[in-house]
Amino acid sequence: MQRTRFGDLACSIARTLDVIGEPWSPLILRDIYVGINRFEQIQQELDISRKVLTERLKWLVENEVLQRHAYSERPPRYEYRLTAKGLELCDLLLVMVRWGDRWTSGEAGPPVLYRHHACGQVSHVQLRCSVCAEPMRATDVDVLPGPGAAPAVTRA
Amino acid sequence: MQRTRFGDLACSIARTLDVIGEPWSPLILRDIYVGINRFEQIQQELDISRKVLTERLKWLVENEVLQRHAYSERPPRYEYRLTAKGLELCDLLLVMVRWGDRWTSGEAGPPVLYRHHACGQVSHVQLRCSVCAEPMRATDVDVLPGPGAAPAVTRA
Repeated sequence: MQRTRFGDLACSIARTLDVIGEPWSPLILRDIYVGINRFEQIQQELDISRKVLTERLKWLVENEVLQRHAYSERPPRYEYRLTAKGLELCDLLLVMVRWGDRWTSGEAGPPVLYRHHACGQVSHVQLRCSVCAEPMRATDVDVLPGPGAAPAVTRA
Repeated sequence: MQRTRFGDLACSIARTLDVIGEPWSPLILRDIYVGINRFEQIQQELDISRKVLTERLKWLVENEVLQRHAYSERPPRYEYRLTAKGLELCDLLLVMVRWGDRWTSGEAGPPVLYRHHACGQVSHVQLRCSVCAEPMRATDVDVLPGPGAAPAVTRA
């Protein structure tokens, strides 16, 4: 099954995509991140089929990205909250925003602005090195095999 | 059609997902980023169907994420190169790596390491504010409507 396969690859990109690798999951995360966190609200906001939403929420809960909390007992109703793991996944959304604002917004400009708490300014994320704090982008790194790399294929 | 719909939403996340919103496209980008850039190479490396790979490459070229270059005239053969737009999309891969390494690597550790040119250290990306350079993560921002926001619905 495709889902299992991506998660089994020795690649952190593939494994991350195994959790959010289709358009709906990141948009569900986005909704929950901005406080749209009940099934009916998300379903209406995204105009997503109930079947697909149910399936995606279940998957995200199983992967500990979301937690389900009862907010009503009769009838039983639930809202979804981000776990620490899920909240860190929202960082990825901020990087999508930066790329999308730059390359897809056109003359209308960014649909949404992000005001940074620390400085109070509307800004964007920048990628910097966790060691030296200098800019660190895809062009600024060498790619090396890590400890969890797939074993090299031994040729006869 | 679903593809058109995501690109039409007033949301930079949805518009970005319209370009790379399924598992294959980011993995194709990853391959091209590390120099696996010919059709046959990518097809073998990812074990992807030729039909799907053809379709995804065409879409990424149409979206100006990739450019096609002939490397042989007889027979006609092409390789794919990242545009500036595509290279900036690879920044997103570095953020996926960070999340995937942290939450999906387990005891084996990261499959791949990234050595930063500026400091020579193996490290990870950190998200920082483009204005003040302090850390800027999903928990550090207020979300505001931007100039390209969808018009508010007027209720009768």
